[in-house]
Order: sequence, then structure tokens, then C-alpha cells
Amino acid sequence: MASVGPSVVDPTLRDELDIVIPTIRNLDFLEMWRPFFENYHLIIVQDGDPSKTINVPEGFDYELYNRNDINRILGPKASCISFKDSACRCFGYMVSKKKYIYTIDDDCFVAKDPSGKDINALEQHIKNLLTPSTPFFFNTLYDPYREGADFVRGYPFSMREGAPTAVSHGLWLNIPDYDAPTQLVYVDAVMTIPKGTLFPMCGMNLGFNKDLIGPAMYFGLMGDGQPIGRYDDMWAGWCVKVICDHLGLGVKTGLPYIWHSKASNPFVNLKKEYKGIFWQEEIIPFFQQVVLPKEALTVEKCYLELYKQVKEKLSTIDPYFTKLSEAMVTWIEAWGELNAPGSQAVDYKPSKVGTRAAK
Amino acid sequence: MASVGPSVVDPTLRDELDIVIPTIRNLDFLEMWRPFFENYHLIIVQDGDPSKTINVPEGFDYELYNRNDINRILGPKASCISFKDSACRCFGYMVSKKKYIYTIDDDCFVAKDPSGKDINALEQHIKNLLTPSTPFFFNTLYDPYREGADFVRGYPFSMREGAPTAVSHGLWLNIPDYDAPTQLVYVDAVMTIPKGTLFPMCGMNLGFNKDLIGPAMYFGLMGDGQPIGRYDDMWAGWCVKVICDHLGLGVKTGLPYIWHSKASNPFVNLKKEYKGIFWQEEIIPFFQQVVLPKEALTVEKCYLELYKQVKEKLSTIDPYFTKLSEAMVTWIEAWGELNAPGSQAVDYKPSKVGTRAAK
Repeated sequence: MASVGPSVVDPTLRDELDIVIPTIRNLDFLEMWRPFFENYHLIIVQDGDPSKTINVPEGFDYELYNRNDINRILGPKASCISFKDSACRCFGYMVSKKKYIYTIDDDCFVAKDPSGKDINALEQHIKNLLTPSTPFFFNTLYDPYREGADFVRGYPFSMREGAPTAVSHGLWLNIPDYDAPTQLVYVDAVMTIPKGTLFPMCGMNLGFNKDLIGPAMYFGLMGDGQPIGRYDDMWAGWCVKVICDHLGLGVKTGLPYIWHSKASNPFVNLKKEYKGIFWQEEIIPFFQQVVLPKEALTVEKCYLELYKQVKEKLSTIDPYFTKLSEAMVTWIEAWGELNAPGSQAVDYKPSKVGTRAAK
Repeated sequence: MASVGPSVVDPTLRDELDIVIPTIRNLDFLEMWRPFFENYHLIIVQDGDPSKTINVPEGFDYELYNRNDINRILGPKASCISFKDSACRCFGYMVSKKKYIYTIDDDCFVAKDPSGKDINALEQHIKNLLTPSTPFFFNTLYDPYREGADFVRGYPFSMREGAPTAVSHGLWLNIPDYDAPTQLVYVDAVMTIPKGTLFPMCGMNLGFNKDLIGPAMYFGLMGDGQPIGRYDDMWAGWCVKVICDHLGLGVKTGLPYIWHSKASNPFVNLKKEYKGIFWQEEIIPFFQQVVLPKEALTVEKCYLELYKQVKEKLSTIDPYFTKLSEAMVTWIEAWGELNAPGSQAVDYKPSKVGTRAAK
């Protein structure tokens, strides 16, 4: 089986995973997640007015960065981090010193499985990330690495080792109580999105291996000062998928579910997404035909290659894509600085910190 | 929405679908299927000794063909139909005069859903076949055409029409009672296998649109006189998938489940499958790189193109593939004869017929 981590991995990843939360409000939603998140470190990225105080419930171990912190830490390169859009979350990926990231929105709550039990979403993401993916051939009985599952007859033996998993894309339910239609919606499966296939990646319940794919998890330029919003996760998903395909890495989707109680207004959202809905009709065919050169063997090299192709082929849609392509380069430069050897020891001095409750 | 049939389709497809069953034994298993199959026409392909009498329960509308019938109807071209292997089922596809085929093995029984209700597998296959597929982009919330389901945010609008569905691949459970582990195994989803991805197609619970993909549903040369057995459905699946991908047709997998009470001996099976397990390590990479010429716009043309590539590239594995490639041509010729314009009126004079119970 392909090794995707050290030979002895703590299956909770307690010291190897950060939870990144972008927010503009008090983080009361964490109360519900306390049993599952309390042993992890949180990185909170405060969007919007930095003078506003964000309350974090007692007892969580966290660091909080606002816009002033981002500007101070990145200097002119802070231009690549979006403002007034949850795309700002990717700053948290950059300052994390852990191998794994789980990111969740502050309007996502604990869902229940059909038996009524609370779903520990983080635990399932970790399982997904620590077991291989099957991007090269479809296993009709879903995730063969799941407990009690296996490969089906006819699955080539040479492919049963699978590929290292870079991304775990979790789903959502949005009905609080379990009635019949919701049971229908709850699909008890995890699967690999096959090589060569794009998907609409949602950023609100997402786990990934930073070592394997981190530099491609850029959520683009969205929100304030940009002609588009709320396409941050889609953009990241297209980029991530073509790079995973090129590097032989796996992307899983399915379990775990969270319960999404949408905080945003659908009419305001449509205004923000409007251009994205039109533009993606050209962007998706572009990503479907992207070919990365064989020599591109690191995520950074792949991403800079992608930048060139975005600049060349998407700028014809709108000047915005020239700006976005340049931000892709700035992002990689900033990533390189914050994740250079030795950066593990740097204290970025967040505006606010909290410590774990003593037990 | 892409039209995959006449503008007004009877949603039961009662007069447009045949059920094809390959067998060597009395068809007592049909008793359990009576409520779901009794209004359909069955085509039974008797494998092995033609002098043996196969009992079919009273009240089913069927025609039964044995080896003598196959030899009489196809003449020298009968060489393309396997003997002593369930691959012989594809003869039934050839003589059917309907647009849709459902094929099921005689060791497959009615499964129950997690609520304990009998699953009407045929009804679900029909739903799968009459709604489009999504081979060009992955819908993370599974089949968007299912009642109550939809496309997710970020799914391109231009692709929401989908593609006509050529194949519905059903799954199986093999534990008769529903305890916790089985609940886990029952995944309440149908999904499209994306373009460019191969899968291990199982032939025991399979629906397809004969008009769209019939000539590619050849189950190869297996069993008696061949160095291989039980790879018939895999072979058909690889061929079908590359042709569906080329022609822009969809292949779905997932629901419905049947309960599989394996009649065959696993040790005997391994002996039959042995070569297939080794050979597929070369065959699958071959199918993964097959490119069909743009001019090949019909299934027959695609299949004859595939024959050329099989002959050229797989014959180096074993002389068997030369023989198989020639059988592919024979199959297409025989298909053409039996499915020529006007063939609707031909009575192939099966050995045995049964009529529906009067009500």
C-alpha cells in the first residue's frame, strides 16, 4: 500500500492537523463541534473589518489572523489574499505548520447519520486522507479501503495499491431532522473522482494533505475589488484536480456529511456568482484540456505552468484573468517564503490566541 | 434534456424490453421475480447439453434457445457464441427485437432495501436508462436526475442536459438478512462512470439500450475450447466503455441491488479466471489508450476499429487474441444479419416457448 505519511501515524492526527476557519462573526458554531475539535489547533482567518472583535468560545486552542496581520506578514504579496470573501481562508493554509488541513465554514454544523448518531466529520476526513485513492480504475463497490470493503472481481491487481490521497471532499445535508427524503440524500459512500474528471469542489467541508497538494490550494481573487465572488473553491478545485491527475494523486468525495445552515443570502450570492456561472462555460473546457509538461514534478512547478496557460488562454475572456494569473504567481512566492525550510520555528504573531482548556 | 427514446415512453417499457437469462438449470429462481418480471418477455439461452430439459415456471412469456438453435440460426457464424460459459447470453441480445435489454443470472435473487422492502431491480434499471448520464463532469451529489436530486453549485449549465444513457450497471449484496454490516454495504446511489474511466462490468444484473450500444455488448469467446472463462463481462465492459466514451454515451452504476447467491464454485472459478487475471494487466492499459477515429460514428464501425487494434496489439500476449479478434468480426456480421431492416418479422423458432398467464 502506498505510504502517505510516516510509518507510524497517530490515527487522530492530533499534532499533524490544523483546522482553518474563515469568518466574519462570533464562532458560537464551535460549541457544537467541541467534542470533535477540542484537541486540535484552529487557525481562524478573520475576514472584513479587522477592528471588529470575533469571540471564540473558551477552551479552544487557536490563533486568529485579521487583515492587518495578513498585510503585515505578507507585505505587498498580501494582494493575493482575497478580502470580503471566504477565499481568504487560504491564508490559513499558508501559515499552518502542519501536514494536514481541515477547513470548515462557520455555518456548518454537526450532522447526524441515519441512525441518529452525531457524525465526526473530521475523523472521517482523516480516514479518507490516510487511506489510498483509486483514480486509475473505477471500483464499482466504492472505497475498497474502507473497513469491510474490498476490490471487486476484475479490478487489476497491479492497481490495488492505489494512489496517495491528496484531498478529501466532504458533502452536506441541509435538513436538520431525519425524515424519509433526507435518508435518501444520505449516501453512505466515499469514492475517488477518477483521473481526467473535473468536479465542483466545495470549500466548506474539505480536508487535504498540505505536503502533497498545499501550494495548489489557492482560492483565487474574489470579493472586494474583484468582479466575482464565491467561485474561490471552484477555482481551487479545478487547479487541484488537474495537478493531482498529473502527479498521480487521489481526490476522494463523499462522506463525511456536515449540516449546512446557509448564512448567506441567495440573491446576494447570485450577484456575486453571476460572472462565474458564465465564465465557467469557457474555464471548464480550458481545464479539461490542460496538459502539464512531464518535467513538472512538484506542485509549485505545476502551478506555475498552469499560471502560464491561464494567462495565455483565459485572459481573452476578461482582463480579470490576467490579474488572477499574476496573483497565482504571487501566491506561490508567498507560499515559498512562509513554507521555506526553517519556517516551522517562525511565530507570525496572530492578533489573538486562545489555549486549550486544562483538563 | 437529451431524448433517449420516443417522445412518449411507457415508463415500464413493457413492450420495449426483453429479459435475457443464460442458464444450465431449471429456472425456479424466476418464482421470486414473478411480481417484477411477469409482464415482460424472457429470452432464455440454454448453455451446455441441448438435450437437457430446462423447466421454466408456469405463466412466463418466454422463448428458449439451446445450442442446436444457435447453430441452426447462425450457421458457421455460431462460432462467435461461447459454449459452457454464461458469455452465451449475448446470443439473446442478438435475437431480441426490443430496444432495451435486461440480463440477469439464474443465481440472482430479489434483494431487500434497508427498510426491508423488496427491490424491483428492473424498475430501477429502467429509470437509469430513461434518464441522462453525466459523463463529462462529476456531480458530487450523485445522480442529478433522480427524484428530489439536482446538480450542485458549480456544475456547468451547458452540461446539465447530460448524455443519453447506454448502460445501467447494477450491484449486488450477498448477505440474505439485513444486519449492520449489510446496511453499510447498501449504498443508496446511482452515478455515472466518467468519460475516460474504465470499470469492471459485471454481467449478472445489467441493463442496456440495444439501439445505442447493442453491437458492442459482445461477451467474447469463453469457456469450452477456450483458454479462459468468466471474463466475458469484463471484456464486454472494456469494449462498451471506450465506445460509449467515443460516442458521447453514458454508463451508470450503483442501484439497483440484487442478492447474489453464488451457484459457482470459487476454486473452479479461479481456474477459469486465472489467465484473465494475468492478461488484464496488459489488456487494461491497452483499453486505456485506445483512440477511435473520428469517422467512426456508429457502434458497429467503432467495434470493427477496436477489432483491428485488438488484433494488432493484444495478439502478442497470446494467440487467443487473434481468435477473439476474428470472433469480434463474426459477431458484428451475425448481428448485422439478425438485426437488418425487416428482421423484426423473422421468427427464429426457439426450441421452447411459454406464454404469459391469462389474468
